[in-house]
Amino acid sequence: MHSARTLGKWGFDVTYLSVDGCGFVDPQNAEKAITKDTILVSITHASNEIGTIEPIAEIGKITREKGVYFHIDAVQTAGQIPVDVNELGVDLLSLAAQGFYGPKGAGALYVRKGVRVTPLMDGGIQESGKRAGTENVPAIVGLGKAAELAKKEMAERIQHLEPLRDKLMKGLVERIDEVLITGHPQKRLPGHVSVCVRYIEGESMLMFLNMQGVAASSGSTCTSKALKASHVLAAIDIPAADAQGSLLFTLGQDNQEEDVDYVLEILPPIVQRLREMSPLYHKK
Amino acid sequence: MHSARTLGKWGFDVTYLSVDGCGFVDPQNAEKAITKDTILVSITHASNEIGTIEPIAEIGKITREKGVYFHIDAVQTAGQIPVDVNELGVDLLSLAAQGFYGPKGAGALYVRKGVRVTPLMDGGIQESGKRAGTENVPAIVGLGKAAELAKKEMAERIQHLEPLRDKLMKGLVERIDEVLITGHPQKRLPGHVSVCVRYIEGESMLMFLNMQGVAASSGSTCTSKALKASHVLAAIDIPAADAQGSLLFTLGQDNQEEDVDYVLEILPPIVQRLREMSPLYHKK
Repeated sequence: MHSARTLGKWGFDVTYLSVDGCGFVDPQNAEKAITKDTILVSITHASNEIGTIEPIAEIGKITREKGVYFHIDAVQTAGQIPVDVNELGVDLLSLAAQGFYGPKGAGALYVRKGVRVTPLMDGGIQESGKRAGTENVPAIVGLGKAAELAKKEMAERIQHLEPLRDKLMKGLVERIDEVLITGHPQKRLPGHVSVCVRYIEGESMLMFLNMQGVAASSGSTCTSKALKASHVLAAIDIPAADAQGSLLFTLGQDNQEEDVDYVLEILPPIVQRLREMSPLYHKK
Repeated sequence: MHSARTLGKWGFDVTYLSVDGCGFVDPQNAEKAITKDTILVSITHASNEIGTIEPIAEIGKITREKGVYFHIDAVQTAGQIPVDVNELGVDLLSLAAQGFYGPKGAGALYVRKGVRVTPLMDGGIQESGKRAGTENVPAIVGLGKAAELAKKEMAERIQHLEPLRDKLMKGLVERIDEVLITGHPQKRLPGHVSVCVRYIEGESMLMFLNMQGVAASSGSTCTSKALKASHVLAAIDIPAADAQGSLLFTLGQDNQEEDVDYVLEILPPIVQRLREMSPLYHKK
């Protein structure tokens, strides 16, 4: 999104694809948007804000037919769900080690043989001349080991996370009124729960959750400090007022059912308290 | 150098400053090269290949007078010798943690207040929107701690390294004939020894040194895999044939006098053996 905007500033023509209410890109839309001048299609494999997993393989078929390079941002999916560049039909794929318990500071760009990319950083010839700078060997080794473990344990990890995720989503909707699940209820990241709690501010909920030992986030983790309304939530037609109450939980391997129960126990009174102070809620 | 070349490809006018036989940029030359269109002067504080420390403060006075931004690459100097952005008169300064025993994977760009720079990576708003991506917190903390220690111990470290460096340089010239010190003999990095051993290949010396437990390098560490003649050595008018025999030792805090003695003991027979096989040496 941001990189596309920068390319636009540099003079490239950029077409932004719309998404439906669950955040899905329609492959037909992608197909229609490709012109004879299109050189690249770039899609996020799964949204970090709403968890929806995009129909990448279907889009990959189209880009292949059209002879256009296809990049996906797999930072949210690599190491979490099966990702196969051939099955997905992608030419370029970015991932980050911290997505699957690897060290921060290491990521990777898969580049299909024959695809030529401009260096990100000039200077030394490290990383085949594509990214200059002394290699962070410990982090690179850590990424490799984390990837190996993620692949080995993936089925098990998903089996652990999905029931927790589903219990938390179901529980939030049942125990708090005017809560909206954002993203697709099933076709989403295994440990990812995102909701909008109407009439209150996500930031206030975070503060109270934090005081009770729960780490969550509101809006995009990458732009939270900017305090801007989420462009992802806007794209799925969540009204700006509701988007303010966005709340995001990402469950990990260390989370157990009692953690989910704990959130379901402490969040409803937090919401109630905040709503009692909210002029928007009283207006109802 | 490489980044400048890329800017040139993008349509920027780039002037490359020449250096003298020790690798010094002449501040007068820098002054003459600045035109009314010049926006930035960028100089390496000290060369990683020949160790020469550039007269940055003098150039900084000129860029200030002329109202041109001044960037230095302090990767080789930060944490090793005193670096003060105000004394040097620089507006931008890059450094890397591994230069002073900090973790790989962390670096910093000093940006003087009021200087606006284009983001290196777009996306999240991390690092004031200048470099998107989840912060590598452990490495950042490590950089900070390493910097603190480097500052505290700097005088001591320099006092430890300079006599070792001088002994090694002196010893190499005394014990091996046709050896050329590259860079300035005194105005150089505290632990940096660089020479050209004529008539033989640096790579072959490295192999033998390595077999006897000594890590050294030949040419630039960043382009060694490219096996190209060093553009730094070419710039100080070292003939290409002699540049092939370049050898670089960087001494660290763990090195002691006996390490220097060991190199001075094992290198002369290595050189002799290689020269005996060298058609160039026999031709003499």
